[in-house]
Amino acid sequence: VRSDAERNRTRIVSAARDVFSEHGLDAPLTEVARRAGVGPATLYRRFPTRDALVAAAFEDPMAAYADAVDAALGDDDPWRGFCGYVVTVCGMQAADRGFTEVLIRTFPSATAFEAERERAYDGFVELVRRAQHHGGLRADFSPEDLVLLLMANAGVVAATGDAAPDAWRRLVGYMIQAFRTDTAEPLPPAPSPRAMYRAMVRLRTAGRADTG
Amino acid sequence: VRSDAERNRTRIVSAARDVFSEHGLDAPLTEVARRAGVGPATLYRRFPTRDALVAAAFEDPMAAYADAVDAALGDDDPWRGFCGYVVTVCGMQAADRGFTEVLIRTFPSATAFEAERERAYDGFVELVRRAQHHGGLRADFSPEDLVLLLMANAGVVAATGDAAPDAWRRLVGYMIQAFRTDTAEPLPPAPSPRAMYRAMVRLRTAGRADTG
Repeated sequence: VRSDAERNRTRIVSAARDVFSEHGLDAPLTEVARRAGVGPATLYRRFPTRDALVAAAFEDPMAAYADAVDAALGDDDPWRGFCGYVVTVCGMQAADRGFTEVLIRTFPSATAFEAERERAYDGFVELVRRAQHHGGLRADFSPEDLVLLLMANAGVVAATGDAAPDAWRRLVGYMIQAFRTDTAEPLPPAPSPRAMYRAMVRLRTAGRADTG
Repeated sequence: VRSDAERNRTRIVSAARDVFSEHGLDAPLTEVARRAGVGPATLYRRFPTRDALVAAAFEDPMAAYADAVDAALGDDDPWRGFCGYVVTVCGMQAADRGFTEVLIRTFPSATAFEAERERAYDGFVELVRRAQHHGGLRADFSPEDLVLLLMANAGVVAATGDAAPDAWRRLVGYMIQAFRTDTAEPLPPAPSPRAMYRAMVRLRTAGRADTG
């Protein structure tokens, strides 16, 4: 028999997942408490920061995101593995508005959650290396270009919604063609990892409606 | 000597431009009134709808947006004209957060404003036609792909902000290379004009914090 505390936790996490997915990661935490049927004090006691709540709500998709890199690295065609991963990750963004944002923000105090993101990033760097050496990925492709694409895709997903739910596939289709060596012409410089990290931290704190 | 009414109008429009550019098009109109130094009633009397205020605030950039197509059509190299226009328009989005959103929403009741958008669209259709016939633009490029790119670029501009202010150029660089015929492989279908229009109407009404 689960304790009341465990039941409360499960209800809060489930409510947070729904609310963040419907209204974005800046949704009021009072709405999460309301849907979970707990008082705000209970919610804040369990999850003293918004980061902790986001991490709990998106623990499973974040693990799936990192696991998807391992699957891609298992593909013996490096280009197919690379493209498959890019489409998979952008599809995860399209499927869940909360997760759309999780992939372009960072939640530094949620260390286990951020460790999964780092696992995904490290795997992606290896996927890029293989695809550049053996798969026709252009040499000037930077791992930060995936973050750039995720930000662009977030814009398309947010803007199109149910009105044009497959539009993101077209964007990704174009970008994948641009990533091929045989189309490579000089590009504007890639954003630096430091700049993109700053952007992801900035987003985390932008537009907060309440504390947490 | 200008009348009080004229002075009020000028101050409201200028305040609206600032507030929308800083906080987006859903910013509270009470903040616009406060900055303009007028009461909310005065603001609502002058601009009974948010559409009307947005249209007044972005009248000049919208005209510049439409004029940029004419300039591009005047280029005797159709590909250069096409690319220059795409970069110019995405740069307009990067330069002004309010205008970023203006280009991916629609404000149906602001008829003169929307007529300018239509002028830009009609010119762009002609620019596409010329670039497809004589400039190497892929045959399956759809005018809706510009809207798609503007939505993607809005995502990058919103996500990177001051942290990586030139990241949008990299996105646009990739997309332009993908638009060339000699790189063309089959793509997922373009979103229909109707779907993209629905998306732009939907955005207009999403997240309204107050009436107007």
